[in-house]
Amino acid sequence: MGANMARRLKDCGYTIGAVYDVRSDVATALATELGSTAASSLAAVTAGADIILTVVTDDAAMDAIFARKGDSLLKGATGRVFINCATVSPAIHVEVAKRASKAGAAALEASMASSITQARNGTLYLMVGGDESVFGQVKDVLSKLSDDGKLLRYVGTSGKAAQLKALVNMVMNINTAGLAEGLALADAVGLDLSMVREVFSQTGANSRVLATDGEDMQNRDHSCFFSAAHAAKDSGIALELGLKAKLNLPMAATAFAQFTRMTQLGLGELDKSGIAELTFKGRAPKPKKPTKAKKAKAPAKAAPAKRAKK
Amino acid sequence: MGANMARRLKDCGYTIGAVYDVRSDVATALATELGSTAASSLAAVTAGADIILTVVTDDAAMDAIFARKGDSLLKGATGRVFINCATVSPAIHVEVAKRASKAGAAALEASMASSITQARNGTLYLMVGGDESVFGQVKDVLSKLSDDGKLLRYVGTSGKAAQLKALVNMVMNINTAGLAEGLALADAVGLDLSMVREVFSQTGANSRVLATDGEDMQNRDHSCFFSAAHAAKDSGIALELGLKAKLNLPMAATAFAQFTRMTQLGLGELDKSGIAELTFKGRAPKPKKPTKAKKAKAPAKAAPAKRAKK
Repeated sequence: MGANMARRLKDCGYTIGAVYDVRSDVATALATELGSTAASSLAAVTAGADIILTVVTDDAAMDAIFARKGDSLLKGATGRVFINCATVSPAIHVEVAKRASKAGAAALEASMASSITQARNGTLYLMVGGDESVFGQVKDVLSKLSDDGKLLRYVGTSGKAAQLKALVNMVMNINTAGLAEGLALADAVGLDLSMVREVFSQTGANSRVLATDGEDMQNRDHSCFFSAAHAAKDSGIALELGLKAKLNLPMAATAFAQFTRMTQLGLGELDKSGIAELTFKGRAPKPKKPTKAKKAKAPAKAAPAKRAKK
Repeated sequence: MGANMARRLKDCGYTIGAVYDVRSDVATALATELGSTAASSLAAVTAGADIILTVVTDDAAMDAIFARKGDSLLKGATGRVFINCATVSPAIHVEVAKRASKAGAAALEASMASSITQARNGTLYLMVGGDESVFGQVKDVLSKLSDDGKLLRYVGTSGKAAQLKALVNMVMNINTAGLAEGLALADAVGLDLSMVREVFSQTGANSRVLATDGEDMQNRDHSCFFSAAHAAKDSGIALELGLKAKLNLPMAATAFAQFTRMTQLGLGELDKSGIAELTFKGRAPKPKKPTKAKKAKAPAKAAPAKRAKK
């Protein structure tokens, strides 16, 4: 995602001051492509740019790149604006914003509700959280990534965008898990699934995930765009928010349990459409029966991703 | 629904041979409007028409109008085609088709996935189950009700359309219950719900029910288009199919439990969007505490439908 955002901004005339990746060969290749520099440290990234976009895997990585001590993006960060695009917890965004402020810098979150192609084309759906005046400062850059700002939304203070992103994925996961049950039952009673999907698309059963995942569920094509493990993680973030708010969210809890079960069965790296492997008759991987002598858990094999993703 | 279908067919040049309703004043008024006859018995309906469309409330009503003895649509039914449009169980459709066949007639099911306005305009989404050759005989009439057949689908043998309709509603109910949780959590963490709905609509959280029910959930406008009690009934039909097929459907079961809880709380006659009354903070109706002397259940009051439905 980060590389494609850099490519897009280069196309739009911005100078890419520095690029950084924990895999230094990847960073070097990208720097060469973009006429940029592969920074040798986090501090060197900050030294080389006014606006720093980050995309990391999880809270721990966010904590690490914005470390209080040692090599850190916060070194010499006075006047810099950090835009953090990864889907991480609301709490870490709030924490990073505090640390940035102490370092004389500012941090925004720009949660993405789109994928790699949209990053390359500058048509990401971006939800921004943080100080609104800081948002104003970097709005031009963000607009270049979000269809000239048509897909850019200021959501609220720090943490709010991450909350909203978790909510988007929570609802998406519920719809996905529900669709997998509908198609599984249709299959079990002998209905033609292509016809069923067409009927769903014309009725109250229609949803975005029907369009993105319905055919893949039918064809068992689970090459990964958004993994079941990620789905479980995001539903977990949302459920934690729900717990704090003392809300009863049985649908979210059930979807979370389903995606968690996928990871437990060794299916966590399948696309979220792989949830259909749990619901269709005859598909669910059966954990091997432990013998009397040896009761260790036998993780089931992942279902094969049968075809290349279109 | 039945009255509007009759109006539409009259507009298209068909003669409405007879109309029937258990409320005879309703039947008389409609007959006057359509230049038709209010049949005094079920048998009189069959005597007055070649094709008989029925829309009843439940399985028991289907069983009654197609009774084996006494007044019945099956009396003198040789050569007639019955088209049964109500959302009832697959089993009763199969049973009625058998009885019709014995009476020298034929019965199709034409499950509707649309509402009153579409019936009047002839733009119903119709899923037809039954003998395919019989479907061919009445295809012209059905086309007039389904946008010149653009929204007409032959689904399979008797019972298949009812199965599919139950599946459509099962998935719709899951998406509805899930959306109610997403909006409730967004509200609890202080996000602006109009903004959230807009974001949902642009992302993987999008669904038909977001468009039809999202704003109503926000505004607590639960005037009834499709009741929670109906939602519970249809999810129940689907779950029974799932049970027979030995499928594990935790999302469907959870949605069923939520809509059933609505009926238990006295909210069954709210629109399905009323599920948000269970999930939003501060909305859930609290059953009155039973006093020590009197432990009878105190059904909670239904939330008010605040505005007229657009």
